[in-house]
Formats: sequence, C-alpha cells, structure tokens
Amino acid sequence: MGTKQLNGSAADEADLTRADSLGREIFSDIANKWALLIIESLGDGTLRFSEVRNAVQGISHKMLTQNLRMLERNGLVDRTVHPTVPPRVEYTLTEPGQALRATVDGMCDWTHRYVGHIEASRHRFDS
Amino acid sequence: MGTKQLNGSAADEADLTRADSLGREIFSDIANKWALLIIESLGDGTLRFSEVRNAVQGISHKMLTQNLRMLERNGLVDRTVHPTVPPRVEYTLTEPGQALRATVDGMCDWTHRYVGHIEASRHRFDS
Repeated sequence: MGTKQLNGSAADEADLTRADSLGREIFSDIANKWALLIIESLGDGTLRFSEVRNAVQGISHKMLTQNLRMLERNGLVDRTVHPTVPPRVEYTLTEPGQALRATVDGMCDWTHRYVGHIEASRHRFDS
Repeated sequence: MGTKQLNGSAADEADLTRADSLGREIFSDIANKWALLIIESLGDGTLRFSEVRNAVQGISHKMLTQNLRMLERNGLVDRTVHPTVPPRVEYTLTEPGQALRATVDGMCDWTHRYVGHIEASRHRFDS
C-alpha cells in the first residue's frame, strides 16, 4: 500500500487517497488466516458449507460464517442457494477470488519451502 | 496445506505429517495483516523500530513488538542492536523474509487491481 506521489489534479489525488484507504481496508479484511485458508479450500472448485468447514481444519462455525459472508460481500466468493429440501448452499470463487488464490498458493509454497529454516530458527531463539 | 498421499515408509509419513502441522502453524503466525504489513514495510531495507511503526499505519506499540518478536523467532527478520547511547535497534528481512515479501507484494498488487470490483460488490451486497 505504498504512498503514491503525483503531480495530478486535486481530484486525482483525492481518488488515489480514497483508493489507498479502501485498499488498506480490503487488505485488512482478507489478510487473516481463516479468510486465506477458505480461499485456498475453494481453489479446486465449488464446495458446500460443511465441506469448506472440513477442509479448513479448526475453524468454528461462527468464524466460517463470518468469513464467508465477508468474502461474499467483497465479491470474492459466490454463494448459490439451491431450492432443495433442505436448501443446498454452495460457495464458489469468483475470478478475483481465483486471482487471490494464486497469491495464497504462493504463501503456502513459501511455508513448505522454508519450514526447515523456520524450525531451526525457532530452536535457536528459544534456547 | 493440502494433504499429501504417498506410499513411503512410516517414518516418511510421520515426517510429512509433522511438516504439515508445523506448516499450518507457521501459516497461522504469518497470515495476519500486521505481520504481512511489517514484512512489506521492511521490503526496501533496514528500518528502526520507530520507522517500522511509522510505515505500518495504525499498529500499536504492543502489536508491533509482538509481531517483530514472532518474525525474529521464525527467522524472517534479523534484529541488530547497535551499542550506542541510547542503543539503536534495527530490523532487516532475512532471505526467507524477502521471499515472503514477494508473495505479500502479490497480495498488495491484487488489492490495487480489484479495488473497483470489490467496491462495486460491497455496494450491491449492502443494498
């Protein structure tokens, strides 16, 4: 979210400042482990609520509900209700959600790549 | 953090399970907005505590201290104390920290790219 310097009009500057502030707000919404793990879980296709919950180990019903709603509100996840009895509710990544998933994949790859380094560093730090 | 299936020895499987559990733990540590914004702020070079605090708008002294300590423990940030009066304390990304920064950059780019889409989606959702 670097600060942008420009010599444009006051309107341009106001737009940029607003976009920057909104950008920070969005970053705050999505940069939490539950949101990112939900996005990762939906990376391979549509899932029902209970399937997301199984995929994201350790998440509570409440946190999953809150985060799915936040992701839906931000347009990263589509929620579809099928009129069966009981209703079947499914979640799918939108195109922006898929794009975010690519960066989450990068973070997961990073974790796997450096797990040994991190473990060694923790041992040094704790002793 | 996908589950890995393999036909290796029991020792291999135990190692993988352990790495996976540790990986999840590491992901939980770093996948929070403060940690990621601190890493982003250190992307361009060494900073003092007060400089990180200025760069990461809105972070409290306590959260900054906790997150820098967590990042140091995980070997993502080096902390150097210069023996001046008062001591000068500086923070620098390690090589794994730099690698993580690349994925955080991707997340910031994503935010800027989709800010319009997200804003429109929020308006629809809220109305």
